[in-house]
Amino acid sequence: MAAPAQRLLVDVHTHVYLPRYLSFLRARSAVPRVFTRTTPDGASEERLLILDAEPSGGRPMGPQYWDRGLKLDFMKRHGIDISIVSSANPWLDFLSAPAAHELAHQLNDDLETYCSTSPALAGGPLKQLYGFGLLPLVPEVTTASLLDTVHQISALPHLKGVIMGSRGLGNGLDDDALEPVWAALEHAGLVVFLHPHYGVDGKEWGGRDNGHVLPLALGFPFETTIAVTRLILAGVLDRHPGLRVLLAHSGGALPQLSARLASCIAHDP
Amino acid sequence: MAAPAQRLLVDVHTHVYLPRYLSFLRARSAVPRVFTRTTPDGASEERLLILDAEPSGGRPMGPQYWDRGLKLDFMKRHGIDISIVSSANPWLDFLSAPAAHELAHQLNDDLETYCSTSPALAGGPLKQLYGFGLLPLVPEVTTASLLDTVHQISALPHLKGVIMGSRGLGNGLDDDALEPVWAALEHAGLVVFLHPHYGVDGKEWGGRDNGHVLPLALGFPFETTIAVTRLILAGVLDRHPGLRVLLAHSGGALPQLSARLASCIAHDP
Repeated sequence: MAAPAQRLLVDVHTHVYLPRYLSFLRARSAVPRVFTRTTPDGASEERLLILDAEPSGGRPMGPQYWDRGLKLDFMKRHGIDISIVSSANPWLDFLSAPAAHELAHQLNDDLETYCSTSPALAGGPLKQLYGFGLLPLVPEVTTASLLDTVHQISALPHLKGVIMGSRGLGNGLDDDALEPVWAALEHAGLVVFLHPHYGVDGKEWGGRDNGHVLPLALGFPFETTIAVTRLILAGVLDRHPGLRVLLAHSGGALPQLSARLASCIAHDP
Repeated sequence: MAAPAQRLLVDVHTHVYLPRYLSFLRARSAVPRVFTRTTPDGASEERLLILDAEPSGGRPMGPQYWDRGLKLDFMKRHGIDISIVSSANPWLDFLSAPAAHELAHQLNDDLETYCSTSPALAGGPLKQLYGFGLLPLVPEVTTASLLDTVHQISALPHLKGVIMGSRGLGNGLDDDALEPVWAALEHAGLVVFLHPHYGVDGKEWGGRDNGHVLPLALGFPFETTIAVTRLILAGVLDRHPGLRVLLAHSGGALPQLSARLASCIAHDP
């Protein structure tokens, strides 16, 4: 009697700030940046600011974001067999095209090392850590730069896809200029992990201080929903049926709104 | 043996443009307005523009919006026993406070007549049509004007609540200035039917022409979700546990995002 197939719990949404990226954020004076402040009880703490007008003085930042041992501890504690880690937003959005290209390649190599040197999963050839790499998706980047980076990632054996935001080259993911990128990702069999960063316009949240609640609870899933809907309406998924797209946060609001979307497409006056 | 309780199919989301309101829209030169155009095959048709930069040359407008006979035919065709009709967006948002007050009262009286003279539902004291009235929710309206209108509606026997958008007096529904209105609506037992109009900022939709699909399929439910979330965060539902709120379009995206919302409230850094 054959052994039953092994069932693996795989966490596909878990972020890392690689040391090289973190150094970069610590050196910056504009968002995104990491700064150190003193807490009321005299301790020193690092905070991350990723948006202008960040509520609550930013977000707490700690070694859970860069210490691989802590990532593996977390996995053990929660029974996760494999994690596919990805750089956290805002990725390379704030860089010039040449700088984004260079840092993407360096971080992809860093992430490959992070994964390839991770412990083996017991009883097989798999590692405990794999990754989603970064493309230099910024305005004015060349198609050649993007395709070169897809090629780099596809040659790194522990990187299984890319994480990307919703802005593309500045005009969203329904931009025709991205067509060769979708084709290359599809051809390489790389997963696209679509992840929000900007939310929707902050004026929607009104004048009350609700901390990060509205931008994170609503803005994030709205951004993902808009991005994938624009991808659908632009025909990207029709032209690239082999493209595998993973949507953050359970698809934003798409599962609930998909029937409404279909109806609006069918009945637009 | 007692007869089984009657089961009624009630349509709570069905709009009307009352003739008085329609005349108003036909006379306007700025949105919202109704205009007549000639179709390519020479016919005359009315179109409704409710937003600046309306896609697709506006929306088709026909007697289904004002002919009560057609509303009753629709109900018969779909097996609907009772409809609770409401004025369609954008209601009175574009008026000055005195004009909004006057038109609200007139339209509430019109709607009462529209409902009170409708056919009786077979086998009982109920009518086939009931309504949700309008409050003059515009900037600079006085609390007295709002409370006076709540009082008017509560005295009209066929009006069972109010329909309202998300802007309140211009600062959203989490505005402290609305507190007496929530109290009065709760006290009167009037339902609040919360309905979107503005969606979210149009720049989120990108540069492609997708007609009304993005603002209607996504913008509308996003607006409702934001509005009710801000209502929750402001404690309105805690202070007014008897307030009955009906959310358009299955609650927007709230059902899918409610657990995320609860988590973000619990864990906001």
